[in-house]
Amino acid sequence: MISVVILGSGNVAYHLTKAFLNTENVIVKQLYARSVAQIQEFQHTTSITDDISLLATADVYILAISDNAISEVSSHLQNKFVVHTSGSVTMNSLQNSGRKGVFYPLQSFSKSKQVNFNTIPFCLEAETTKDYQLLERLAKTIGSKIFSINSLQRSKLHVAAVFVNNFVNHMYTIGNDICDTYDVPFEVLLPLIEETSAKISAISPKDAQTGPAKRNDTETISKHLEMLNESQKEVYKLITKSIQNGEKL
Amino acid sequence: MISVVILGSGNVAYHLTKAFLNTENVIVKQLYARSVAQIQEFQHTTSITDDISLLATADVYILAISDNAISEVSSHLQNKFVVHTSGSVTMNSLQNSGRKGVFYPLQSFSKSKQVNFNTIPFCLEAETTKDYQLLERLAKTIGSKIFSINSLQRSKLHVAAVFVNNFVNHMYTIGNDICDTYDVPFEVLLPLIEETSAKISAISPKDAQTGPAKRNDTETISKHLEMLNESQKEVYKLITKSIQNGEKL
Ligand SMILES: NC(=O)c1ccc[n+]([C@@H]2O[C@H](COP(=O)([O-])OP(=O)(O)OC[C@H]3O[C@@H](n4cnc5c(N)ncnc54)[C@H](OP(=O)(O)O)[C@@H]3O)[C@@H](O)[C@H]2O)c1
Ligand SMILES: NC(=O)c1ccc[n+]([C@@H]2O[C@H](COP(=O)([O-])OP(=O)(O)OC[C@H]3O[C@@H](n4cnc5c(N)ncnc54)[C@H](OP(=O)(O)O)[C@@H]3O)[C@@H](O)[C@H]2O)c1
Repeated sequence: MISVVILGSGNVAYHLTKAFLNTENVIVKQLYARSVAQIQEFQHTTSITDDISLLATADVYILAISDNAISEVSSHLQNKFVVHTSGSVTMNSLQNSGRKGVFYPLQSFSKSKQVNFNTIPFCLEAETTKDYQLLERLAKTIGSKIFSINSLQRSKLHVAAVFVNNFVNHMYTIGNDICDTYDVPFEVLLPLIEETSAKISAISPKDAQTGPAKRNDTETISKHLEMLNESQKEVYKLITKSIQNGEKL
Repeated sequence: MISVVILGSGNVAYHLTKAFLNTENVIVKQLYARSVAQIQEFQHTTSITDDISLLATADVYILAISDNAISEVSSHLQNKFVVHTSGSVTMNSLQNSGRKGVFYPLQSFSKSKQVNFNTIPFCLEAETTKDYQLLERLAKTIGSKIFSINSLQRSKLHVAAVFVNNFVNHMYTIGNDICDTYDVPFEVLLPLIEETSAKISAISPKDAQTGPAKRNDTETISKHLEMLNESQKEVYKLITKSIQNGEKL
């Protein structure tokens, strides 16, 4: 049995709390938030507090709060095993005097959207093997994909995630804009979008590449550029160049 | 019952042939390819030929050949109902004297990969309502998502597809490169990638956007830029700018 205290009331704190409350091998000893109103809904299932000096004793303290508050808030948690849930903050940003670790679920969360932790990778880090194993046991109570990722690797993963999530989503936005401009239903593209993302589970994205840039089909590229507005054109040109540079490597 | 002759031996010809051979309401009268060796495997199921002057009579002639060969090859098919399967060639590029149309399955095909036409959008075009309805009936024998898309719209759809397929895939490639450089398993990112593509069936990509560019989190953006090589940096900066310009609209 592992006992935890969860600090925060945002997207990640909410879903972790729900998940741990639903599992047998974890006790959620307490929830903490600056404003106790935010965690009121859990008042009948666990202890809640807004006083950080009155935290219950637990094996792990999970800081699921804004990146820029992690250092400050952790400094109030002396002599405890404190982990944060951030992809972009190093383990040593934690300012507690005790043990430190990271418990980072790599997925995008929002309160309104259900979460299945079983498909979400947990990126774990700790100072000692024993603490790593504790985090691993904790992650395994709700998830199945566990990775040991140190702070340097995690920061790189975070940049990579910007490309495969935010930037990919922006390509969808441009595709959607083009469809809207010419009165084509964007939904026509959804199966292609699904196929594109599904494909790379089987083959590397580099091998999966097709299209005018890869073929260096200059005629099609020129035709395409004529159809785009200035900012779309700039993106089209640069990504085409980047695909072609990649091919040369 | 609709009878068809399929011309070509590439990815699209292969999968269309297989699908039509498997359906009850279509007869594949004949297959044509420049080199008959390429369609040998169908010799026991239908008639095959490499002589374009000896084509059988059929309701529809489906030209599933390279874009740049469509005009020339169609000029040999006088007095017939000829359709091509291309996303980027106009209907009027067809040079037959008879009826013209387009039968464009919007998905990426390769011979080695199984295809489920039921999930693939068919973008159809014809000169008359009667011909459109014939193509619609034909598409419905193997598929369920049918869209009426004219040549102008189709050309826009094709550019949009470059963004949501080729450019998205390039973002995956950069993500993969970053992971390789820092010895992080790329598979950690696969659930996020799936989630990102699945999300936009429910909400518009513009509303789905998150991340440092959208938040204008300049500190994180600077940290990220420091971790990238020159060409990755150029892409990061431009897409970040493009996301932020989009926000202002
Ligand atoms: N959302 C995601 O997709 C995601 C995914 C993986 C990891 N993460 C990481 O998980 C952590 C939390 O993210 P989130 O999305 O859950 O954030 P969020 O929804 O914005 O919630 C942030 C939480 O931090 C609290 N907080 C902020 N400053 C505080 C302070 N000085 N003292 C105490 N509490 C403070 C907020 O409390 P108030 O309500 O009182 O302001 C709120 O409960 C971050 O490190 C984030 O990088 C997020
Ligand atoms: N692949 C896709 O993902 C996809 C998706 C949607 C639509 N399309 C469109 O479907 C069409 C076919 O694409 P594909 O991927 O199937 O192409 P492919 O695999 O490259 O095959 C091209 C076919 O065209 C034939 N061909 C080329 N020039 C010819 C000529 N002068 N005379 C007769 N045959 C000729 C080739 O014959 P040889 O083998 O003798 O060279 C080959 O059978 C194109 O218009 C393409 O834009 C493709």
